[in-house]
Amino acid sequence: MALQKEIVAIAKQAKDASRQLSHISSDVKAGALEAMADGLLKKKTQIVRANKKDIANAKKAKRSKAFIERLMLNALRVKKMSDDLRAINALNDPIGEMIKMWTRPNGLRISKMRVPLGVVGIIYESRPNVTSDCAGLCLKAGNAVILRGGKESLHSNTAIFKVLVEAAEKSGLPKGSINLIPVADREAVQIMLKQIDYIDLIIPRGGESLIRAVVENSMIPVIKHYKGICHTYIDEYADLKMAEEVSFNAKVHRPSTCNAMECLLVHKAIAKYFLPGMVRRLKKAGVEIRGCAKTVKLCSGVIAATTEDYATEYLELILSVKIVNSFQNALDHIAKYGSQHSEAIVTNNFPNGIRFLKEVDAACVYINASTRFTDGNEFGLGAEIGVSTDKLHARGPMGLEELTTYKYIIMGNGQIRK
Amino acid sequence: MALQKEIVAIAKQAKDASRQLSHISSDVKAGALEAMADGLLKKKTQIVRANKKDIANAKKAKRSKAFIERLMLNALRVKKMSDDLRAINALNDPIGEMIKMWTRPNGLRISKMRVPLGVVGIIYESRPNVTSDCAGLCLKAGNAVILRGGKESLHSNTAIFKVLVEAAEKSGLPKGSINLIPVADREAVQIMLKQIDYIDLIIPRGGESLIRAVVENSMIPVIKHYKGICHTYIDEYADLKMAEEVSFNAKVHRPSTCNAMECLLVHKAIAKYFLPGMVRRLKKAGVEIRGCAKTVKLCSGVIAATTEDYATEYLELILSVKIVNSFQNALDHIAKYGSQHSEAIVTNNFPNGIRFLKEVDAACVYINASTRFTDGNEFGLGAEIGVSTDKLHARGPMGLEELTTYKYIIMGNGQIRK
Repeated sequence: MALQKEIVAIAKQAKDASRQLSHISSDVKAGALEAMADGLLKKKTQIVRANKKDIANAKKAKRSKAFIERLMLNALRVKKMSDDLRAINALNDPIGEMIKMWTRPNGLRISKMRVPLGVVGIIYESRPNVTSDCAGLCLKAGNAVILRGGKESLHSNTAIFKVLVEAAEKSGLPKGSINLIPVADREAVQIMLKQIDYIDLIIPRGGESLIRAVVENSMIPVIKHYKGICHTYIDEYADLKMAEEVSFNAKVHRPSTCNAMECLLVHKAIAKYFLPGMVRRLKKAGVEIRGCAKTVKLCSGVIAATTEDYATEYLELILSVKIVNSFQNALDHIAKYGSQHSEAIVTNNFPNGIRFLKEVDAACVYINASTRFTDGNEFGLGAEIGVSTDKLHARGPMGLEELTTYKYIIMGNGQIRK
Repeated sequence: MALQKEIVAIAKQAKDASRQLSHISSDVKAGALEAMADGLLKKKTQIVRANKKDIANAKKAKRSKAFIERLMLNALRVKKMSDDLRAINALNDPIGEMIKMWTRPNGLRISKMRVPLGVVGIIYESRPNVTSDCAGLCLKAGNAVILRGGKESLHSNTAIFKVLVEAAEKSGLPKGSINLIPVADREAVQIMLKQIDYIDLIIPRGGESLIRAVVENSMIPVIKHYKGICHTYIDEYADLKMAEEVSFNAKVHRPSTCNAMECLLVHKAIAKYFLPGMVRRLKKAGVEIRGCAKTVKLCSGVIAATTEDYATEYLELILSVKIVNSFQNALDHIAKYGSQHSEAIVTNNFPNGIRFLKEVDAACVYINASTRFTDGNEFGLGAEIGVSTDKLHARGPMGLEELTTYKYIIMGNGQIRK
């Protein structure tokens, strides 16, 4: 009950702050982000010291090297967090934008005005930089934020949080603008996910199991993506040199990311001109190829793919390959196995390109480019709080604008309805 | 299990149809809606005959007069349904609109393209006209639709559904574009609300209890509003004549609607000049006034309001009135009791107007006009599938555009990520 009370008090305080944040000036917000960036630099010794406690505990708990690498902070990494806050601050304030305006015959002026979402809850794993990134993005968009990081990073997050809160409040942001769940207890997340009166949106950041647990337990809307099983389809009318460069990049550039290619689809008419060389180049780069029967026959050193392969997000140097009999078969395969994240076609055929754009149900659909571009910075959004495969509200890379909603504002001079 | 299988088959068929609808031409859709409108006229005798069965059952079950009035169809009402389909059809096709376009330094052309949501499920009570309205709106926006009306209207809905499906399929729309849950069993709704792989959005239309039941049981995103507790705040800087006309209209024009005023807030500085006359006029129109202690003292014939009054959506000729000490108090009252639907201020003061617009958390915020304008037709959206108080995706009156989402489309000439 004490925990329940504590979390509800935090959520309520955030809601109260969000009312004030909704009409605070851009200048005050900009001053606060600047002070937060300065604060991180000034207090970097304390932050790194707190991080050392987390690292020691993680080592005691025998966490993996990769885990500790993600958790670790040093002076350089704190400097990067500070720089990232300044980069967010350099973006235009999205709040107050008139998205659309029109006038009705009776003189009413109706606009859709961009407004903050209110209170955003972030549930993440053990990367301490998420703490400052998400606080910065949410505040810039006029939202109060409630942060809940992995319990293994609680010392680091608490140290960062204290710096950010002090800077924000000194700069005139209301108390409760930035909040951190101060306990490691997992029950705290369950309570947080029920605060439908106070929290407007939950964004989980982490692996698929974390995201599923959040979605299944939340009464609050959640924006997320589970995984990225991204396809590149090489059409019979593709420029084969371009097809090779684009698919090589999509697989090899950074295979651990959600926008990396996991499955290559090739039209049967060009398979024999394209695949043998492509497979050789991929194998040379260390990629394990799992192909359909036709691919196994056509290329050497290819393992037979199972149905499960097509449904797998490898996140490493493994690729499934399928030769399809038609464009329609490629569309069907993507509809069945795709994760609505990023899908690409390489083609010089106009109708095929347009139909691919229209029919493929995904947040990002590409013609003649690598799926690796699905990213807030690459899209020119300036920053990214996540990638969404949802259809309601925000899809694809989510930047500042996607941390807002709109309200209709109606200005009259006394109109009454007849 | 048989029911489970049947509902899943319908949902799957809808999803398959939605893939084809995503790239069907505007002409084919327009032809289908035209044929659907014609079909209703041609088959009006059969539709009215089916409706007579529902009416007979409703009378046997001793349903209220109001219930039977809503359920009843005659030739004129079927004609109105047909006209409404033509009105929807006259709107521009929203699909394919490029919401934003930009080019990146590397030559990538990125656009946000408007696309259908996919499959929309509508759960409604016993107004048979919702069947054709929602089918028309969803199809025009390129969505497949799954309709589930009240069990008391099943004969009527089935008759309307058959006419619509025949017309749509003859006009070239894929099988499964329009679907009706053909059984009265309530379990069918529970199964429908779990089809997260096939249904993209649920819109419940009806009373608060229906909506709460849907929200609590759905795994699919739901767009809705629970109720409308709309306030009109008369600022100390209001034009008092305008204030009287606007608030009288907001309360009396059609008190049973969600956009009618339920609570009048009056700044103390102008209360004695404004309220006595206002209360007299409202009482003359049959409105029962429940006021705060100050209002009771100031005006005659006012009942003392309880806290519960401020939290009540009357939907009839009852109004709560509160005199507030300051603009801030008015904002606090709305934040506490408002339903995020429609809120109005009457003022000639610029800063107060702007702060009200920015701070009040509602789908529609008015300056100097009646909240009764919150309506798809009054906003000029042409048609309305509902009003949403959600922040994620669509707020306020929802027309055709709000039955869509977007995807990013990225066109390159071979760009790879460096």
